[in-house]
Amino acid sequence: MANKKDLLLLFHHPTEPVFMDKGGDGTLFEVPDSFVTERFKKMEQQHSGVGGNGRRICIKEMSMPDMGYCLSLGHSEQFSLFLKSHRQMAGHLIEIFTKLPTVDELQSVAVFARDRVNPVMFNYALSVALLHRPDTRGLELPTLSQTFPDRFIDSQVFRSVREQSVVFGDSKNRDPIVIPVNYTASDLEQEHRLWYFREDLGINLHHWHWHLVYPNEVSEGADPRIVDKDRRGELFYYMHQQIIARYNAERLSNHLARVQPIIDLEDPIAEGYFPKMDSSVASRAYPPRFDDTQLKDVDRPGNQIKVAIDDVKRWRERIYEAIHQGYVLDMNHKEIELDEVKGIDILGNMMEASALSVNPSLYGDMHNMGHILIGYCHDPTNKHLEDHGVMGDTSTAMRDPAFYKWHAFMDNIFQEHKRLLPAYKEDQLSYPDIRVIGINVESQGEINKLTTFWQESDVDMSRGVDFLPRGNVFARFTHLQHNPFNYSIDVENCSGATRLGYVRIFMAPKLDDRNAAMFLADQRLMMMELDKFVIKMQPGRNTIRQESKNSSVTIPFERTFRKLEKNPGAAKSTENLENYFCGCGWPDHMLVPKGRPEGMKFELFVMVSNYENDRVDQNLEGSCCNDAASYCGLRDRLYPDRKSMGYPFDRVPRNGAETLENFLTPNMNTVEVTITHEDRTVKSNN
Amino acid sequence: MANKKDLLLLFHHPTEPVFMDKGGDGTLFEVPDSFVTERFKKMEQQHSGVGGNGRRICIKEMSMPDMGYCLSLGHSEQFSLFLKSHRQMAGHLIEIFTKLPTVDELQSVAVFARDRVNPVMFNYALSVALLHRPDTRGLELPTLSQTFPDRFIDSQVFRSVREQSVVFGDSKNRDPIVIPVNYTASDLEQEHRLWYFREDLGINLHHWHWHLVYPNEVSEGADPRIVDKDRRGELFYYMHQQIIARYNAERLSNHLARVQPIIDLEDPIAEGYFPKMDSSVASRAYPPRFDDTQLKDVDRPGNQIKVAIDDVKRWRERIYEAIHQGYVLDMNHKEIELDEVKGIDILGNMMEASALSVNPSLYGDMHNMGHILIGYCHDPTNKHLEDHGVMGDTSTAMRDPAFYKWHAFMDNIFQEHKRLLPAYKEDQLSYPDIRVIGINVESQGEINKLTTFWQESDVDMSRGVDFLPRGNVFARFTHLQHNPFNYSIDVENCSGATRLGYVRIFMAPKLDDRNAAMFLADQRLMMMELDKFVIKMQPGRNTIRQESKNSSVTIPFERTFRKLEKNPGAAKSTENLENYFCGCGWPDHMLVPKGRPEGMKFELFVMVSNYENDRVDQNLEGSCCNDAASYCGLRDRLYPDRKSMGYPFDRVPRNGAETLENFLTPNMNTVEVTITHEDRTVKSNN
Repeated sequence: MANKKDLLLLFHHPTEPVFMDKGGDGTLFEVPDSFVTERFKKMEQQHSGVGGNGRRICIKEMSMPDMGYCLSLGHSEQFSLFLKSHRQMAGHLIEIFTKLPTVDELQSVAVFARDRVNPVMFNYALSVALLHRPDTRGLELPTLSQTFPDRFIDSQVFRSVREQSVVFGDSKNRDPIVIPVNYTASDLEQEHRLWYFREDLGINLHHWHWHLVYPNEVSEGADPRIVDKDRRGELFYYMHQQIIARYNAERLSNHLARVQPIIDLEDPIAEGYFPKMDSSVASRAYPPRFDDTQLKDVDRPGNQIKVAIDDVKRWRERIYEAIHQGYVLDMNHKEIELDEVKGIDILGNMMEASALSVNPSLYGDMHNMGHILIGYCHDPTNKHLEDHGVMGDTSTAMRDPAFYKWHAFMDNIFQEHKRLLPAYKEDQLSYPDIRVIGINVESQGEINKLTTFWQESDVDMSRGVDFLPRGNVFARFTHLQHNPFNYSIDVENCSGATRLGYVRIFMAPKLDDRNAAMFLADQRLMMMELDKFVIKMQPGRNTIRQESKNSSVTIPFERTFRKLEKNPGAAKSTENLENYFCGCGWPDHMLVPKGRPEGMKFELFVMVSNYENDRVDQNLEGSCCNDAASYCGLRDRLYPDRKSMGYPFDRVPRNGAETLENFLTPNMNTVEVTITHEDRTVKSNN
Repeated sequence: MANKKDLLLLFHHPTEPVFMDKGGDGTLFEVPDSFVTERFKKMEQQHSGVGGNGRRICIKEMSMPDMGYCLSLGHSEQFSLFLKSHRQMAGHLIEIFTKLPTVDELQSVAVFARDRVNPVMFNYALSVALLHRPDTRGLELPTLSQTFPDRFIDSQVFRSVREQSVVFGDSKNRDPIVIPVNYTASDLEQEHRLWYFREDLGINLHHWHWHLVYPNEVSEGADPRIVDKDRRGELFYYMHQQIIARYNAERLSNHLARVQPIIDLEDPIAEGYFPKMDSSVASRAYPPRFDDTQLKDVDRPGNQIKVAIDDVKRWRERIYEAIHQGYVLDMNHKEIELDEVKGIDILGNMMEASALSVNPSLYGDMHNMGHILIGYCHDPTNKHLEDHGVMGDTSTAMRDPAFYKWHAFMDNIFQEHKRLLPAYKEDQLSYPDIRVIGINVESQGEINKLTTFWQESDVDMSRGVDFLPRGNVFARFTHLQHNPFNYSIDVENCSGATRLGYVRIFMAPKLDDRNAAMFLADQRLMMMELDKFVIKMQPGRNTIRQESKNSSVTIPFERTFRKLEKNPGAAKSTENLENYFCGCGWPDHMLVPKGRPEGMKFELFVMVSNYENDRVDQNLEGSCCNDAASYCGLRDRLYPDRKSMGYPFDRVPRNGAETLENFLTPNMNTVEVTITHEDRTVKSNN
């Protein structure tokens, strides 16, 4: 019987043929002759005599499901989740992979499919399948940066890798390849001050992984629950809203104004971007976008995509109209109210758009088509046979300044809906008998002072550098880091009984991009969620302690910069396996913004709400990946908070609560926190 | 004593360290420790224990000339002959290489310089030095396509090369890697019909080599004759004029209008171009140009270049003014007449501009700066840290449609001067007592019918693919080809004595891009020189025979698609060595335009002029490379024709000679030749 862990070997060396050794220990898949593709027939003969001092995994012949449709995307073309045709192909493959009754059959079919379908689509579809099949729980998927490092790293690095591997052979003692910093632009480009955010490994992995957990479409025969997850539309809104809030905090840290949304797609995009990356699958560079590039209607029959700027304008106006009327029309012309509870979820699905959109003909496919219009602006008609730029791929889009401009516009629309909802009244905010008396944020012995700096960390790319002698290949990234910190929150419980509270911690800059104090209507949009957790309060005074590394929005540092195990199939404790299961989550090292060398003031906000009102009753038996539930939800479960995401800042403040100070009810409090950036680099202990 | 042939090994594997094996037979340079750069110190230790079952070339330690200035161009930056600062660095290196008294010292210094200076600059400077040193005559330089194949080939090919070399090891039986055709654009891009011309290996090699033979600048201490060659300015005009004539004939073959010059640099350039090539030196893609890109002022301090569109306009107006006034002003404000003989040469040097320009402050640097403005239009301020596009390099510029638009504009200016010269009178054209009675062009048994088709040819790239296991790497190009043909020209000599004649053969399309017959004023600009040679005519009737492959504008097929010798240092007959010496010349396979599937009519023109008037008396002792003298001149000698280049079509026709037919004097004749293109592909016999 197949060992489900062997499935993970299929992710390794994704552009090498399946019969070449995998896993770094000489393990080979022994495949029936009929599995070998024409392209590799000759190679296989040559190769079968060479390799194989490791374990042999014998693959059984079986009748193969029809995957013809999935082959219409070429092996060296770029796969894009923003293209419906690609989503449908991947959806078909997901259906095949998820419906196979046994791991044995899954293994055979996956091995057969591997050299046939596009390598990135294969990775995506197999990942989704392994994440959603009950019998493949607990598998530690390699991160995309391990298998496709080309999507995260300067193309020049691969030259050094080749240089090293040829000169040193397969020595295990190769030096890590240092990824340059500041390589994509110069100081002339103000936007480049944000390089460490946009080009961060963990942030881009988070975005890829989020879309892996929330596919927006599967084929008809597949389990609809893969798409239809609890509050997925709302989470689409909230996760992206938080990205913009965080991005704006970084911009302020760097003395830049908040991001300007793309409101009119006919305006040229001032901010150019040159990714300087080569796709290993396409063997071509990711096309750049020059400064001041004008978007054009996209018409690329090969990608089955045709979208006009006019289409997007039309959808935008219809969505605004729906928001202002307070209802959308479904396919049967029925009005569905955009109410306080479900309105945002409906909008999220409509705007993304996912398969759950109430009326795709009317409200279109706005968010995806923005990615398409921007991602193909260098070659909108495929006249020059160029594939999409970084905006066309979820693992690379966040590198591009245009990503934030587009999502800032998305967020404008969502906020228009939120603006029309009634403000939370005091009784919707307060928690009678509970008072937050004081907040201290401690880090390295200092109170309410956080420090950021640079850190070098290594990533093992040896499973993703193909057609080179085997051996360790480490890439050394420089990224932002902060000293860990602890919250200490004093809460008074005057109820005389034990009470449960939901602690909600947010932070926002104190001053805006005019160096002026902000009204809450403005500041609320910059509120970054830092943590959310349940507490039990005894009567009287309670001191709540929480470590920053346990944040509900992040995944641990080790998930971004983790080492590959010598034998990735080796057994681990169940708990570890489950923890490793989901890579979705904001990277811990980016939990707080960079701040400024001279210190930058933030307001840290703590609220304790009544957990009895917020709790979502569900069976939480069996451990599940819940580290980053705030941004990623819980696998196969309901979102663990009955309140609207972003509560209490998701609506405009009530009358009389124009500033954060006036907004506070007794169960809330704030403290001023200074974030200081030290321009020094710490070596990783990896 | 050093063997001068070993110098050629320095061209191999240009980005690998000098101490790695070269030449394919395990030959090693044994270098003093002080020669090894910091970067490679660790590698060298590792490596010295490994390689070396071949010959050892022992390199002597010596005191090194100061090459500090040459190091200001980084190892992985792009070298550009269009940048003055790069020309100066290369010029300094050329001075060093040419002034070293012995080959021994040249070898030591070149080995020392090799891993220090930029690899492309090293190749250029050493090539110029070997071409111009008396003691290195007869060395067969590898073509640039062998050492830098990345400048001629789709980046996807290198993926296949790596795949093959890893899967097959260093097997000698690897299949050639097929270079795709039609990969840079689709039929939506009309300009792409010219792919086979713009992206032709031989044409791009010719352009690189021409600029190698005609450096436009060397440093002050170097031999000024390296730049100051006989009629270099005129040859600059003529060689590029012929490119435009040939390009326009190809355009007509493809039902495209003649190329539109770039007259106003403020107009966006409609024609985008995506080279789809990665530079092996920079490990980055050559940046593309999108459709309708607007040029901007270039200001890149790192390249020591600052040029405004206004500058070019100013130079243009001054040059036009000089032409219309009939004189230029030198640095001492002295008028120098633009006369019939030297005018065009002065203009050529001024416009290129070379170090021979009469007044660079006044007339600027127009041609080079056009390449710069276009070559950097994607990143004019270096904001995005992007190097130049293909227009910034002589080995890649001809791939870009903009090259022809820019040079068509250059040619407009040259023609403005030519237009003002007096037309040739009949007595300047005729050859008393000599009559051309008839012309036959025979090919494959057919008369006056030429055939073109596609051909596959292989190029050995094994010396230019670095950091891979050694072994053969063949790239298989598809290029235009024609059946060879023979001229048979009947000439009557009524003088009663033996006479010498200079046979001048041109060809131009019969109909223009409106399908109308052309006036000669127009048609003369499309006259492609096909051959020029000296004949001896006995009294009475003479039949002159000449084979197309001996054309004075071309170099033989084998120079473009030649195999590397097993041992490139092996002795050859002197004649062969001399023949191989110069790679400058139009590729034989592109001698005639493609024509059309249904046949396209051309007028072939033959003139026999009086060689006594045309001859240039000089010592022609010692064989020299004269295959492509018409476009490349003769090494160290005068241009072998006293007439203006392009004679008799370089001026507007005399009154009464408005058509080619009326232009003919008895010593001229024409014949209609049909070129038919057959859309079939012939395998190479390589």
